[in-house]
Amino acid sequence: MSVVLANCPADGVAPDNYHATSIYPEFVQVEPGRWVLLAESRMDCVIRKNPDGTLEVVEFRRLKKGDLVAVGRGENGEDGIYVHAGPLDRLPDFLAGWTPANVSGRMSGPMSVDAQPSASQADTQPADNFATTSAGHLADGAAASGAPGLPGTSGASASSGTVTAPSASFASPSPAATADKFAFRTGVSRETSFSLDYDTLYEVLRHDREHGHIVWVAGPAVVFDADARRAFAGLIDAGYVHGLLAGNALATHDLEAALYGTALGQGLYDKRQAPRGHYHHLDAINTIRGCGSIRAAVQSGRVRDGVMHALETRSVPYVLAGSIRDDGPLPEVIADVYAAQDAMRAHVRRATTVVALATALHTIATGNMTPSYQAGPGASLRPVHFFIADISEFAAGKLADRGSLTSRSILTNVQDFVVNVHRALTGACRTE
Amino acid sequence: MSVVLANCPADGVAPDNYHATSIYPEFVQVEPGRWVLLAESRMDCVIRKNPDGTLEVVEFRRLKKGDLVAVGRGENGEDGIYVHAGPLDRLPDFLAGWTPANVSGRMSGPMSVDAQPSASQADTQPADNFATTSAGHLADGAAASGAPGLPGTSGASASSGTVTAPSASFASPSPAATADKFAFRTGVSRETSFSLDYDTLYEVLRHDREHGHIVWVAGPAVVFDADARRAFAGLIDAGYVHGLLAGNALATHDLEAALYGTALGQGLYDKRQAPRGHYHHLDAINTIRGCGSIRAAVQSGRVRDGVMHALETRSVPYVLAGSIRDDGPLPEVIADVYAAQDAMRAHVRRATTVVALATALHTIATGNMTPSYQAGPGASLRPVHFFIADISEFAAGKLADRGSLTSRSILTNVQDFVVNVHRALTGACRTE
Amino acid sequence: MSVVLANCPADGVAPDNYHATSIYPEFVQVEPGRWVLLAESRMDCVIRKNPDGTLEVVEFRRLKKGDLVAVGRGENGEDGIYVHAGPLDRLPDFLAGWTPANVSGRMSGPMSVDAQPSASQADTQPADNFATTSAGHLADGAAASGAPGLPGTSGASASSGTVTAPSASFASPSPAATADKFAFRTGVSRETSFSLDYDTLYEVLRHDREHGHIVWVAGPAVVFDADARRAFAGLIDAGYVHGLLAGNALATHDLEAALYGTALGQGLYDKRQAPRGHYHHLDAINTIRGCGSIRAAVQSGRVRDGVMHALETRSVPYVLAGSIRDDGPLPEVIADVYAAQDAMRAHVRRATTVVALATALHTIATGNMTPSYQAGPGASLRPVHFFIADISEFAAGKLADRGSLTSRSILTNVQDFVVNVHRALTGACRTE
Amino acid sequence: MSVVLANCPADGVAPDNYHATSIYPEFVQVEPGRWVLLAESRMDCVIRKNPDGTLEVVEFRRLKKGDLVAVGRGENGEDGIYVHAGPLDRLPDFLAGWTPANVSGRMSGPMSVDAQPSASQADTQPADNFATTSAGHLADGAAASGAPGLPGTSGASASSGTVTAPSASFASPSPAATADKFAFRTGVSRETSFSLDYDTLYEVLRHDREHGHIVWVAGPAVVFDADARRAFAGLIDAGYVHGLLAGNALATHDLEAALYGTALGQGLYDKRQAPRGHYHHLDAINTIRGCGSIRAAVQSGRVRDGVMHALETRSVPYVLAGSIRDDGPLPEVIADVYAAQDAMRAHVRRATTVVALATALHTIATGNMTPSYQAGPGASLRPVHFFIADISEFAAGKLADRGSLTSRSILTNVQDFVVNVHRALTGACRTE
Repeated sequence: MSVVLANCPADGVAPDNYHATSIYPEFVQVEPGRWVLLAESRMDCVIRKNPDGTLEVVEFRRLKKGDLVAVGRGENGEDGIYVHAGPLDRLPDFLAGWTPANVSGRMSGPMSVDAQPSASQADTQPADNFATTSAGHLADGAAASGAPGLPGTSGASASSGTVTAPSASFASPSPAATADKFAFRTGVSRETSFSLDYDTLYEVLRHDREHGHIVWVAGPAVVFDADARRAFAGLIDAGYVHGLLAGNALATHDLEAALYGTALGQGLYDKRQAPRGHYHHLDAINTIRGCGSIRAAVQSGRVRDGVMHALETRSVPYVLAGSIRDDGPLPEVIADVYAAQDAMRAHVRRATTVVALATALHTIATGNMTPSYQAGPGASLRPVHFFIADISEFAAGKLADRGSLTSRSILTNVQDFVVNVHRALTGACRTE
Repeated sequence: MSVVLANCPADGVAPDNYHATSIYPEFVQVEPGRWVLLAESRMDCVIRKNPDGTLEVVEFRRLKKGDLVAVGRGENGEDGIYVHAGPLDRLPDFLAGWTPANVSGRMSGPMSVDAQPSASQADTQPADNFATTSAGHLADGAAASGAPGLPGTSGASASSGTVTAPSASFASPSPAATADKFAFRTGVSRETSFSLDYDTLYEVLRHDREHGHIVWVAGPAVVFDADARRAFAGLIDAGYVHGLLAGNALATHDLEAALYGTALGQGLYDKRQAPRGHYHHLDAINTIRGCGSIRAAVQSGRVRDGVMHALETRSVPYVLAGSIRDDGPLPEVIADVYAAQDAMRAHVRRATTVVALATALHTIATGNMTPSYQAGPGASLRPVHFFIADISEFAAGKLADRGSLTSRSILTNVQDFVVNVHRALTGACRTE
Repeated sequence: MSVVLANCPADGVAPDNYHATSIYPEFVQVEPGRWVLLAESRMDCVIRKNPDGTLEVVEFRRLKKGDLVAVGRGENGEDGIYVHAGPLDRLPDFLAGWTPANVSGRMSGPMSVDAQPSASQADTQPADNFATTSAGHLADGAAASGAPGLPGTSGASASSGTVTAPSASFASPSPAATADKFAFRTGVSRETSFSLDYDTLYEVLRHDREHGHIVWVAGPAVVFDADARRAFAGLIDAGYVHGLLAGNALATHDLEAALYGTALGQGLYDKRQAPRGHYHHLDAINTIRGCGSIRAAVQSGRVRDGVMHALETRSVPYVLAGSIRDDGPLPEVIADVYAAQDAMRAHVRRATTVVALATALHTIATGNMTPSYQAGPGASLRPVHFFIADISEFAAGKLADRGSLTSRSILTNVQDFVVNVHRALTGACRTE
Repeated sequence: MSVVLANCPADGVAPDNYHATSIYPEFVQVEPGRWVLLAESRMDCVIRKNPDGTLEVVEFRRLKKGDLVAVGRGENGEDGIYVHAGPLDRLPDFLAGWTPANVSGRMSGPMSVDAQPSASQADTQPADNFATTSAGHLADGAAASGAPGLPGTSGASASSGTVTAPSASFASPSPAATADKFAFRTGVSRETSFSLDYDTLYEVLRHDREHGHIVWVAGPAVVFDADARRAFAGLIDAGYVHGLLAGNALATHDLEAALYGTALGQGLYDKRQAPRGHYHHLDAINTIRGCGSIRAAVQSGRVRDGVMHALETRSVPYVLAGSIRDDGPLPEVIADVYAAQDAMRAHVRRATTVVALATALHTIATGNMTPSYQAGPGASLRPVHFFIADISEFAAGKLADRGSLTSRSILTNVQDFVVNVHRALTGACRTE
């Protein structure tokens, strides 16, 4: 059946039985046999048909009374919506000929939308066919998830592997299923091997620097260490950062480091407590506020190094989202968290790769708004890679619990992580 | 010398050399020999003299161009400001006769403020006297910090101890200093004994239920378990909660539990994954938004149990601060984080005890705005108790790193913590 | 086919293609149609046919040249061994009439053992039948794993649930599988609800006090807190501890507490650093060594309370395994770790429930030697319950990664855990 | 007064009031004015005067009835023993002319030992002089702990720093004390800057490769990742490892990797679960046991790469200490933990630097037996550096809680740590 729409009963309130979106590609049957892929989707939102006919994935808070929203919670087409949790290159046959929704302009084609159906209509719709088809393909996909094209092998040096044509469709990192009744080490922990994840990350970043959109998410620990701060600024300089999502703290301590060489009063390299060092972050904020903006402070020459300096001088956009922990805040910080969400999602809509560093708050926020795929040219799909570097099993587990084929967690100190990535990508050092 | 004031050069910008406040009692010499205690202070703010003569501790963001702000970073009186980091009952002699600042009305007395002094003036000011006096008293205080009046002893059962007269001036939990060159276990970890901390908490809460103001800070884990959620609601019912600071997630999952018996789709007691359970928190939010407010949902009978129900039915005020992770949000959530800070601080100004549960974000935010003391009647000082329950050494260490005499961390699962506290306080069980 | 045996080529060396045991029930076909259940099994050992015809699960280090050991790694009967990873009450039909191996006396029946077969023999053996049968039953089992008989439900208070007839066959704690493509919270973390686990533990312990054998495993943190130490001693006094597996540290600090009221020099309740407190544990060890044994120290009246006192006065056996961290050691400590393994396994062979507290080393060691089942009277099987209390996701995950139906981890501070269990079981308090 | 000795009342039992050693240099006054430095000391042992007149630091378990052991717990010379907890280059004046004890041969000079003194003798001994002198020097030392000679500065790149003459007397990493009443970040956590620690480690290792003795302590995680395992083997090949202290698990999984390319059945690089992979570690052990020893397996060509291969081919000694968790064990594993302690201490006696990787058990065991100093030629003292790499605040805090000037913890994943160290030291890459 085609998708059913219903009207929102009030501002910010979805109709009963609304369909909530996931991180997976979702296809909407707008008329019999005509499937449209949701574009720029995100988790836990609803599908709104705009007056111009386009389908848009919107947050509940943006709904207006009377808006038309898709209803039905079937995931296998029985409600006109198909959620594809399998490999991106293994779509069910009935989706052949799908077209992407065009959210910014017109929808990809005229769409006939049923009125809210009677129960009998819904019941007589044979939905089983979709599920069966899907299941068959999922099984195929699982069998084929042998990760061809992954860089390197156990015996070979990662750097010497001639990984040809790093296409956007990197295969699943999931190991092949085993039929054994028992196996150790099925989760991810500090004891999981990460060499492959690093190598994959390097390959993805090299590819997406030119052919994708790399969004970084970072907590303040990135700028608490001299080498890590320099490395991250170096990644910006080298073109590997197309957008940064962070908070007031990262910017504040980065600017404190630029002005005083400390983070929260402690030397970024020598770790000495500066006299009256607990004033430094406040002084940094006060100074920048006096300049009017971070940009002005950089342009005036007050701030001469670090992450914010690199962003400003390279014209890399960033979002600083406010939080209740903030001192200051810095002028660029967005006080309204939902405005900040919108600003973050504007970056994430374009992301082909997200790298999230040592921040549970911002990583989960970003993860929630990041789909697992991007629609490419010619009705193709590519994965959105999501890498997480965090030192805690709890955080990594919480962040990675997305069921995604393309999410990887590396459990380590973010200082080492950033330095490693910079070293590998800038050619300052050959990886072994 | 008396304190020196200077004008703010722009909105939101403090003058050079501003004095930043701490968690400690700070006394300002408004004229020679006349010391005023800052009231309702908080960390990392500045001291503003209002047009009506009162001294107020304000955030940088609230400054207006031309505002008069105290300058000088000496902590021992050399700049007219004395920061008292020692025991509250051991003030230096020169503070005798101090009066509290009256922030809501008029300041406690006329204040003569010096103009910005010349450097020579500052240099010739003999400040050593203050430091010496202070140091002497601090040494006395340290020697006396033998924790008299603490409940129980190592050999005695905690419950059998007849703890008389639980005054507000509970002594320091810090163990007496030892002269040994080496001792094990000087920090706080999962292996630290917590029986004393629990007993102290129980005593403090029993006292402050009638004679103080108890503010709780809570993360969503408090409502993820059936027993813990019931226990926390029970503490509200029993009058031990005078205010709650939390976020959208706690309220959302508490309401999800009330409506569906799940948290993020998982049974609160049986842990089963409900079919389509990942819709539950969205449905809960959508339902409440449809009702217009949490209060309306409670009053209409849609929500019949749990934390939000208890708060509403008991008329206990709460603050739900927004974050970039939020779905929804619920109607009561404050989107502007600095407005949320202000709302939180309105509670904290009155707090005599803060109990913070399993949330780094909200606990740090609250900790930053909580002074270590309250001014009582008759020029007395009492401590503000700050208890933290968290399962992680990192979080507890970060949260407790306040140098406070009155901050205690208990490293445990918040489920156990809340159930324990409820059981001990409601008399459902005798502590051993 | 019947199981195949081969000779050990040297002392401590198994023949090629030996079969390694798991935690699951394993059935050995000793002659066509005659299946024998391994008794007192453990993980990562081999199956030896003793000269008296019995089958015994033995460690590699105990093999002697020429010993007969089962070979073949098929798990579905194709090599004469069937590993049953499904529910204990859902055995495949072909196992009907199985008998338990009798390791202490004679084997349950004469066993004809094939000589090492030729490859053609093995190849022509139709093994698919077993696998198919097994798969069918596993599917049934999974569908039936709806945990009937579990105490309480989401809506009901745990304490009010009238849990009748706590049989030994408690069902699986795993939630029913969902067909959704996505669900949150599929793992175990600090945010997992634990009320059900506590209630199940209480029920199991009440049952097994009379009708089972409860083995505890404990790290030193159990005796670092006054209340926890008293609670654990109380559990021993109340008959809930049938054996304790621990190390030198637990006993040392328990005895230090008995003699000096401290653990590593810090007060067990008041947390004060005793002068020269870093001598206390050494003095405790030296005192006990002077007495000749822990038992002598208890009997002489030198040690008057605590865990070791309770064990000795209640004649509860214990194993203190040595480690390279030990000071002393205490006289009862076993220096040879493999002798210690043997002593531990002597307890575990009888265990129906294991409760492991805050020790990765001893818990993993014990977990490795604990089967998931016990053979009961009349060809019945009951699960061996394995509860783990640890504060760390990493430890709990590592410990629980056994694929077992009956292993549960509670992430909390062991102090709270022990006090909770004592309170619930001794009736000192009613659980809510 | 001179040190007092007393007889052991029984085997393994020290006399009352025995003096227990610490990690610090301890000087014993063997006759008035003649001070002898304990050599090859360790924590929590006693000082025995051997029949040949030498002073030896021995474990309680090695005492024999009648042995002469030093008594007295004063640390400032009042009992003839001076514990020096200050900087190594700031000894009190009264120690001038001290000589090292010669444990292997004769003691450095004739020693007159008092008989057990009467109480009056002890009381009349003026001990205050020592304490006062010591205090003066400690204060000087603290003021001088400005870490001259440390590589790099906050502003300078670590690699460009021309660190001249890396002497053995690296100064304290502790930051200069501040007189502020408050400072953030006084502990060590994941957010602590580690660049300086890495650089110091590199410098120390480069120095001690030729001029010291570098002992490594390692848990199995070092060999769970392909790059980390290769890096650690590379450090052995490059001469940076003079001894390795580990357990059965590290060797087992290293050998599993050599034979099967897996660790616990999971690919060391590709992370795939090998079919029947849970047999791999058992097969590895069985294979090595069949060879008779690890050495034989290497020499026969069965084992061709990895850590054990590098140790054997480079003739680097190692200790594999047994534990109750062990499968197997491998032939070289020492079953008696106290024999293992002795074997470990034989290495530690010579150590100038210890690097401990991702193992709480072995690190604490080694830390307990590692003094903070080595006596050098010409009555000089040099520190023993103790570096710890661990991912957990709890472990690092527990391990580092030694009060030592020379212990440093780096909180990170050991995979990154080992790869970083190898890269920096082998010149494969320039550090930034």
